[in-house]
Amino acid sequence: MADFSAQDVKKLRDLTGAGMMDCKRALEETGGDIDAAVVLLRERSTSMAAKKEGREAREGLIASYIHTGGRVGVLIEVNCETDFVARTEEFQKLARDLAIQVAGLAPRYVDVDSIPADELEARKRELQADPALETKPAEVRERIVDGQLRKWYEQVVLSEQPFRDEERSVRDLIVDRIATIGENIVVRRFERYALGEEL
Amino acid sequence: MADFSAQDVKKLRDLTGAGMMDCKRALEETGGDIDAAVVLLRERSTSMAAKKEGREAREGLIASYIHTGGRVGVLIEVNCETDFVARTEEFQKLARDLAIQVAGLAPRYVDVDSIPADELEARKRELQADPALETKPAEVRERIVDGQLRKWYEQVVLSEQPFRDEERSVRDLIVDRIATIGENIVVRRFERYALGEEL
Repeated sequence: MADFSAQDVKKLRDLTGAGMMDCKRALEETGGDIDAAVVLLRERSTSMAAKKEGREAREGLIASYIHTGGRVGVLIEVNCETDFVARTEEFQKLARDLAIQVAGLAPRYVDVDSIPADELEARKRELQADPALETKPAEVRERIVDGQLRKWYEQVVLSEQPFRDEERSVRDLIVDRIATIGENIVVRRFERYALGEEL
Repeated sequence: MADFSAQDVKKLRDLTGAGMMDCKRALEETGGDIDAAVVLLRERSTSMAAKKEGREAREGLIASYIHTGGRVGVLIEVNCETDFVARTEEFQKLARDLAIQVAGLAPRYVDVDSIPADELEARKRELQADPALETKPAEVRERIVDGQLRKWYEQVVLSEQPFRDEERSVRDLIVDRIATIGENIVVRRFERYALGEEL
């Protein structure tokens, strides 16, 4: 007898986007513990995504999203490996969700690697110069600065932002989709306009 | 008796976007000559637009256009003076028409002033270096280079491009709309993505 219900399977699917059978198997392996099943599925997604990453992705979609009657607009390019996948509903939904994310949370960079080196350096120096750090040992100072840097990433870097109000980051979302879709997926670039903003 | 028909008035409206009464008056003044009436209305638009130009335009719309199943996308900001005008159908149509123009003809700059100085200089030097010019007098050389520069503008500069398959340029279209709408209108910026293009 399974110690979980069809409801649990559905909930796990909603949380992870994984397939029905994968969700059932994960719940069997964790004895019906949904939280543990989420972790298990995410680990598998990550290891599957790691195998796909680096594969060339030049197909995909240009998507756009216009918000609040034309006062905010986003253009985004999301790449996958084949035109076939680009035309699936799942991939189109992902591209649209990412465009909405950019409209709402206004990230400035696609990923941490896209932050210009001089801007990253300037930010680090600024955090290190905080007078509150002066009395701390060097090791502690470094850990504090690292933590604040990660918080800054969560604001300005798309892949590090929380996806909507969910626990997972945008990167987690993309890793999940790489696992369910089975192709490498890359956000290549985006542009966000706010009406009348200083250029 | 008027020497033009209601059909002529309609044709003139389609050509210029001017109001019914303005079209009738222009045809009366030109004795029913449609071509002359187009010129007359365009002159009036230009002088009316000249009065509006320079007025601050920070309202307007962010519009987008996605072409051929997500392989080309455009984001554009078109400014006018008031939110009221931004919400009119005429202004929304203009913003959309301009986004489609950018998708189709892939301009690189909003206007001639937006071309970076070094790129403009490089282009001029390239045209001046054409061996076919060597035998010409300096004055003729200059005229030829100017003409070729204008042709280049018609390719890479949005305001100088022909609007669709029409005789008028995008700038003419905007001048016409400034006249019919009665507010300054400015294309502030645009971005065009083609799927998988080299960045």
